[in-house]
Amino acid sequence: MVDITLLMVGKTREGFIREGLDFYQKRLKPLVQLSLKSVREEKEGGGLTPETLKSKEGERLQAQMPPRSWVVALDPQGREFTTEEFAAWLGQREELSRPLTFLIGGHWGLSDRVLAAADERLALSRLTLTHEMARLILLEQLYRAWTIKMGHPYHV
Amino acid sequence: MVDITLLMVGKTREGFIREGLDFYQKRLKPLVQLSLKSVREEKEGGGLTPETLKSKEGERLQAQMPPRSWVVALDPQGREFTTEEFAAWLGQREELSRPLTFLIGGHWGLSDRVLAAADERLALSRLTLTHEMARLILLEQLYRAWTIKMGHPYHV
Repeated sequence: MVDITLLMVGKTREGFIREGLDFYQKRLKPLVQLSLKSVREEKEGGGLTPETLKSKEGERLQAQMPPRSWVVALDPQGREFTTEEFAAWLGQREELSRPLTFLIGGHWGLSDRVLAAADERLALSRLTLTHEMARLILLEQLYRAWTIKMGHPYHV
Repeated sequence: MVDITLLMVGKTREGFIREGLDFYQKRLKPLVQLSLKSVREEKEGGGLTPETLKSKEGERLQAQMPPRSWVVALDPQGREFTTEEFAAWLGQREELSRPLTFLIGGHWGLSDRVLAAADERLALSRLTLTHEMARLILLEQLYRAWTIKMGHPYHV
């Protein structure tokens, strides 16, 4: 079973997003070794620039990275996929036999350093999604990718 | 206040999506005259092809279209926007002084006839989203567009 980590900045605050994440985590449980981990987010204020805030968060992300991970940063400037392409891409990444880590930034996104250190950058949409919504869409697409790989019809 | 209708196929079944829609509807209430309407979806089976199912649903959508609407069909093959482009586009559409109707299909998407009759086609992502998730993202982006237009910081 492929080992997938969603490594994120900040807890999930909105109740409906938490419920949605639970919904897809339950469905993915028999299919993937999935874990969701979050690092502490920086509070605004104290005169720190968004760049500084992002890089502090970035250091925390890098400290929590599962060893030997293939790292995929979620970034609106990254590569866009159709769902079928995403499923095929995921199949290829599985063949690497390495843990797969998806990085999702906080309010300010991911630092340049984290983006540069990632193996790949993936965009869920050209739209700027809230970082909580991005978590939900990523899990939904992971689930959808597995249903495609298994040839299941998907009717949620 | 601009008059916006989300005209959809099928009720929203998932609890977390319903809660998310409520969340954004409350926030949009002081900003937009928003209504969510859904038409009955076709049940699979009975030997009907997806094309037939979609066109039956499409007839129902067309019967419920608010008069004089500017019609925007959600379609993964449509035009993609960044959030800033979406906000600017929405500002231009407001100047038409016509009700704005967004069409969201069901499991099978929108029929060719409905797509051809629409004034524009909009893609939220190249990914195929569930039709329920598309509702949530559209409302979230409408809310985000208004916060951009009003110059508010957006921190959800």
